[in-house]
Amino acid sequence: MDFVLHSRLTDDTVFVTDWDLSRVLLMNDKRFPWIVLVPRRACVSEIFDLDENARVSLIGEINRAAKGLKSLTQTRGGCDKINIGSLGNLVPQLHVHIIARSRSDPAWPGPVWGAGEASPYESAALLGAISELRDAL
Amino acid sequence: MDFVLHSRLTDDTVFVTDWDLSRVLLMNDKRFPWIVLVPRRACVSEIFDLDENARVSLIGEINRAAKGLKSLTQTRGGCDKINIGSLGNLVPQLHVHIIARSRSDPAWPGPVWGAGEASPYESAALLGAISELRDAL
Repeated sequence: MDFVLHSRLTDDTVFVTDWDLSRVLLMNDKRFPWIVLVPRRACVSEIFDLDENARVSLIGEINRAAKGLKSLTQTRGGCDKINIGSLGNLVPQLHVHIIARSRSDPAWPGPVWGAGEASPYESAALLGAISELRDAL
Repeated sequence: MDFVLHSRLTDDTVFVTDWDLSRVLLMNDKRFPWIVLVPRRACVSEIFDLDENARVSLIGEINRAAKGLKSLTQTRGGCDKINIGSLGNLVPQLHVHIIARSRSDPAWPGPVWGAGEASPYESAALLGAISELRDAL
């Protein structure tokens, strides 16, 4: 069976690029610099559904995304913490959130999941955010 | 500098065991089967503060904890999803939560962080939970 992105992720994110293992997505929510990584494997829900090589790739890609977000935010005052999470209570397809958090953001110090409503980018700003993220990663 | 567990983690968790990289802790909250892994390294806050070998160890230990919680809960009806998160907005020492979630738990489908108040185990139940977890991991 081929990899197909879950419809909820299709709706909520935009494509940035494909890495060796994961599809790299930008969450369409301008409140937070927010990447979602989705391993391009079918029928994978839990971390232990991946083989060991894929898990090692995944932690490398999580690290790359975290460093990229850190450097991206450094041009505008920095971030205070990178949050990483893989929940999947609503979307069972294995996916990992990487979010740059700031003390001034609207959900601090709580988690972003379930915190208010997403605030989508305007179309020009979305293209800018994708381009900026590609350069930072 | 030596590894010292953050005081907030000391207060909220109990010691289970030490693995190659991480200290394994049980969150003292009987609402959720909940492990916290803390890499035993000083001055590490973000995933990119670890070297590559330690990151590979960490994903292996996350996987082991996730599988252990899954098998632990299978003796009592199973769990619906493993949640994994590394936030650190309140406790900057790098630590990873692994939680067995069920549709019937009090925070479903939201995240556990910030959801209500912890419900500590009674002392006999706490000893039982530690022993059961050691057997499952």
